[in-house]
Amino acid sequence: MTEPASAETASVRNPSARLIDGKAFAANLTQTIAQEVRAFHDRYQVTPGLAVVLVGNDPASEVYVRNKALQTHRAGMRSFMHMLPETTSQGELLALIGRLNQDPEIHGILVQLPLPAGLDPVAVTNAIHPDKDVDGLGEVNAGRLALGQPGIVPCTPLGCLMLLKAELGDLRGLHAVIIGASNLVGRPMARLLLAEGCTVTVAHIDTRDPAALARQGDILVVATGCNGLVRGDWIKPGATVIDVGITRISLPNGKTRLVGDVAFDEAVTRAGRITPVPGGVGPMTIACLLNNTLAAARRIVGAA
Amino acid sequence: MTEPASAETASVRNPSARLIDGKAFAANLTQTIAQEVRAFHDRYQVTPGLAVVLVGNDPASEVYVRNKALQTHRAGMRSFMHMLPETTSQGELLALIGRLNQDPEIHGILVQLPLPAGLDPVAVTNAIHPDKDVDGLGEVNAGRLALGQPGIVPCTPLGCLMLLKAELGDLRGLHAVIIGASNLVGRPMARLLLAEGCTVTVAHIDTRDPAALARQGDILVVATGCNGLVRGDWIKPGATVIDVGITRISLPNGKTRLVGDVAFDEAVTRAGRITPVPGGVGPMTIACLLNNTLAAARRIVGAA
Repeated sequence: MTEPASAETASVRNPSARLIDGKAFAANLTQTIAQEVRAFHDRYQVTPGLAVVLVGNDPASEVYVRNKALQTHRAGMRSFMHMLPETTSQGELLALIGRLNQDPEIHGILVQLPLPAGLDPVAVTNAIHPDKDVDGLGEVNAGRLALGQPGIVPCTPLGCLMLLKAELGDLRGLHAVIIGASNLVGRPMARLLLAEGCTVTVAHIDTRDPAALARQGDILVVATGCNGLVRGDWIKPGATVIDVGITRISLPNGKTRLVGDVAFDEAVTRAGRITPVPGGVGPMTIACLLNNTLAAARRIVGAA
Repeated sequence: MTEPASAETASVRNPSARLIDGKAFAANLTQTIAQEVRAFHDRYQVTPGLAVVLVGNDPASEVYVRNKALQTHRAGMRSFMHMLPETTSQGELLALIGRLNQDPEIHGILVQLPLPAGLDPVAVTNAIHPDKDVDGLGEVNAGRLALGQPGIVPCTPLGCLMLLKAELGDLRGLHAVIIGASNLVGRPMARLLLAEGCTVTVAHIDTRDPAALARQGDILVVATGCNGLVRGDWIKPGATVIDVGITRISLPNGKTRLVGDVAFDEAVTRAGRITPVPGGVGPMTIACLLNNTLAAARRIVGAA
């Protein structure tokens, strides 16, 4: 472990940040959703259904897809798995999505990314009907979010926003600095926080002095995939730090450990609140997928 | 006129910013488009056509619509005006848009905003086929821009970007600060500049210290509608300032004058380059509408 960048100041001001327990928050949210699924069924005789499509045999994707299906099932929803071979053509995949778009038992459709080479993820994602696009990654939902119109918000940024609002309440006027400009996290996060009234800065690989920008953030959201990128002295004392990164590293003793994009041991002495890795943002993503699937079912039956 | 906020520093470093001549740039662009329209017709026997729809009798809107139609015609395109009474229903307007979406002579459709009360501008804008949405204000084009996919970009931010690239070349790594978070300018501008590799900050009505943020901008884009909001000391010395605001003010002598959101006399002593008002961003908007209409026609006939 490296030394905290400015341990002296930090230890005086803020010996240790409050940990944001995403795992507990996600468990509560999932339980609430399960209750709402039952109430929704009692009222409308409809059970929300999620179709998950996996193409090919990427082992990590297989684990993700299985977890999503399992948690959907546990929340009392219907879960449909479509596991297709690597040889699936674009036409076959689009035809399947077309059938799922029409299927009245399906309220949410998720195509696990990345897709094998030769399949166009943009065309495939945009083929999902916007009302069933529970990952919120298609062009119509991206546009609705960009324009501040009602739509489906990508799961990971939605989970981050839920944690921030639970911790901080009204976010209006806070300066949110987002490190990372991906379509999956950074960019939709910027749109969400702007809609909440934050001043928003997006920094990325081409940013000249990311540390100086990060230090301005009352809220700092980090989603770069570079483990340990954000050091203690990047953090404004008292800031709320949301670490979206998750990387498995090998330790000298041969074991492995999950770490985030933030150097946690340093950051915890400066931040006011911080998400740990694991147990912070990670568990929120599937909980938000369930949330989006129930919300989609409500909209489709006209209950929302 | 107020005194420059820090005249001493400014007068030493930079007695007067270079003026960005949007009027000349727009005239050149329009001329190039007119040549390309002829070449396009020679090759494909298709003349790009723009339909402009005006509902009601707002005098300012009537002027805008007439100018758009006139310039379209001058650039060698077909211009179709649909001027509907204030009493037009949502259903009638949507039916017209439906016909224009189908019409092979129409490559661009623009519904002049604001619409009279009782008509839903979101539903109307989204009813325009994305490939003919030459204002780029519908959810699909907003999503494409948000996701970095090819689409139609709103005219005013596109015009600002053209000026910035002509002045500065590659924008990668520059810090762009945008004051104003509207769907018409600020937000799409942020998405455009992020796609160009800028670090992007969006400030707005809820931002706590907009002057301090503005002073960080290598590029400062101002689109608030508050004339004179941005003072000289908001500007980083040498920055490129794009003033989108335009307000007509009354002078003591009874005449009127157009002014921007930037206190020009102060800013010109600090900025490296600045757009004047009028003659800066304003003329770019219609030129970019022509640009988008030609581009739409190219895509529709499969030439792009």
